[in-house]
Amino acid sequence: MTWEGPKPISRVVEGLSRLPGIGPKTAQRLTYYLLRASREQVGELADALRDLKDNVKLCSTCFNISDQDPCHICTNPRRDQSTICVVEEPLDLVAIERTARFGGVYHVLHGAISPMDGIGPDELRIRPLISRLGPGTKVQEVILATNPNLEGDATAMYITKLVEPLGIKITRLARGLPIGGDLEYADEITLGNAFAGRS
Amino acid sequence: MTWEGPKPISRVVEGLSRLPGIGPKTAQRLTYYLLRASREQVGELADALRDLKDNVKLCSTCFNISDQDPCHICTNPRRDQSTICVVEEPLDLVAIERTARFGGVYHVLHGAISPMDGIGPDELRIRPLISRLGPGTKVQEVILATNPNLEGDATAMYITKLVEPLGIKITRLARGLPIGGDLEYADEITLGNAFAGRS
Repeated sequence: MTWEGPKPISRVVEGLSRLPGIGPKTAQRLTYYLLRASREQVGELADALRDLKDNVKLCSTCFNISDQDPCHICTNPRRDQSTICVVEEPLDLVAIERTARFGGVYHVLHGAISPMDGIGPDELRIRPLISRLGPGTKVQEVILATNPNLEGDATAMYITKLVEPLGIKITRLARGLPIGGDLEYADEITLGNAFAGRS
Repeated sequence: MTWEGPKPISRVVEGLSRLPGIGPKTAQRLTYYLLRASREQVGELADALRDLKDNVKLCSTCFNISDQDPCHICTNPRRDQSTICVVEEPLDLVAIERTARFGGVYHVLHGAISPMDGIGPDELRIRPLISRLGPGTKVQEVILATNPNLEGDATAMYITKLVEPLGIKITRLARGLPIGGDLEYADEITLGNAFAGRS
């Protein structure tokens, strides 16, 4: 055991170094920064952390994280309730909201099918999605915005099989070259898909 | 303004992105990690942050940060009170403690002389250091462990001028090649110093 500083300091170092991507050195640097920061700044961060666990819940309709249930996307009268965009994680939803190109509502699966990690369809919020598409539904299109990788594709395929019999339109996000990218640096699969999907 | 998620989330994202080296993307990733982390883990971090500001003070002898005054290095009867190691920052002290090669006590300056940044000797804890070396002192050696750069050298020089008349031994940390380093990759100044200081 090396000396890590007084207890109040080592507690913060420990707490921070448990965060992903933050090693003990970075945790120490951040802690010593906080020691010099204003009492207000540190107090505000501590309060925000407390609040995070106390006041964040899942929307019971779309399973997005929210401070109200149903969330303010599901209850927004200007959002098109007939189009559901299905994403793996809340952060994917945030990324799509940033584009300001989607005016429908969401469904957050909280993961993707991954037999290697022991995650099957029942671990995800797929069943409630199907319920939203049941008799009397207003939904006309389901956009599958799972990640463009093995797990995302498997999940999309699984959902497609369940949704198809309901006669609801299913689409997937386009695949191709990222804007601003350089053809020279595109991986062969992206480039191949871009060729196949040329328009 | 893009949508950053519900208020409790954006508060944590904001708080984290004010930390050095943590951009908005990383702050967001950490926040969503914390959302999934256990209530205990997040609560512990929040408490530790509060505690950091409430229970950490400066030792009135050596000015190291501590939860008690005088600190547990200054009050440790097994530490050699006749040798003071002068460092710029509390983190430097932690680094030296890790080596387990120093059994004396410390003096933390909280910075280095840097006219460019408007930091003169009076902004540092140099005066209290000189007081520790006054009449009746037990101190026999002052080790200047300021950083091996312009500011550190200027600070060491300044302190040397003040301490020399008191007849107390002054030393500086050795300079040379870092252990485990490769001669090929050593910068010319380090290599030059290593030559000059060869033994």
